[in-house]
Amino acid sequence: MTSQLYTVTLDAAEPRRLADFWSKMLDYKVVYDSAEEVAIEKADESGPAVLFVRVPDEKAGKNRMHFDLNPDDQAAEVERALSLGATHVDIGQGRDPDVTWKVLADPEGNEFCILTPRKN
Amino acid sequence: MTSQLYTVTLDAAEPRRLADFWSKMLDYKVVYDSAEEVAIEKADESGPAVLFVRVPDEKAGKNRMHFDLNPDDQAAEVERALSLGATHVDIGQGRDPDVTWKVLADPEGNEFCILTPRKN
Repeated sequence: MTSQLYTVTLDAAEPRRLADFWSKMLDYKVVYDSAEEVAIEKADESGPAVLFVRVPDEKAGKNRMHFDLNPDDQAAEVERALSLGATHVDIGQGRDPDVTWKVLADPEGNEFCILTPRKN
Repeated sequence: MTSQLYTVTLDAAEPRRLADFWSKMLDYKVVYDSAEEVAIEKADESGPAVLFVRVPDEKAGKNRMHFDLNPDDQAAEVERALSLGATHVDIGQGRDPDVTWKVLADPEGNEFCILTPRKN
């Protein structure tokens, strides 16, 4: 007996806008699209979908949960994220010399990190 | 050029405790274990790992991002989650008669939902 991780679900002010950003960022396809909910998933449908659900409440404080991305090329992917509407975020990472990842926020302020490239 | 979803990362007061809960809930194996960070992943290593990182700050308010789980048997999985240390959470879902999912929180209060069973 068990449960599968079905979706990673994000609250959104504008689900389509956020789905658009993340589908481009991760190269996922839109698999469900309504005014209230938009879901995106890998082309091969492996792994959890990412679901964006319209909520009335605004983001408050740093998210407790975030995505870490493994890029082909860190600097290029940071630039690509910025061009898609991401912003740089300072959550204190600049004060730690060991931090190799870049912290960004998606168009609704959800923090995420672009790591240095790694295998797998 | 793209980025892969590498980990879904959760802030944690006690990474091992939270990793223990989620590894049992999802039937994931521990793939990295230090005092500060614990990672769990599917046995076949498909899909993103889930990483628990020790942070000093406490959870404040409802998370903006959460897991939705697809169970074999919803009632049984709710019971199993409770036995592993989850709690029921009321975020208003009881006032909507269309809500079929059960809202719980993990041992550190991170909200998640157990859906009704669905294909894939």
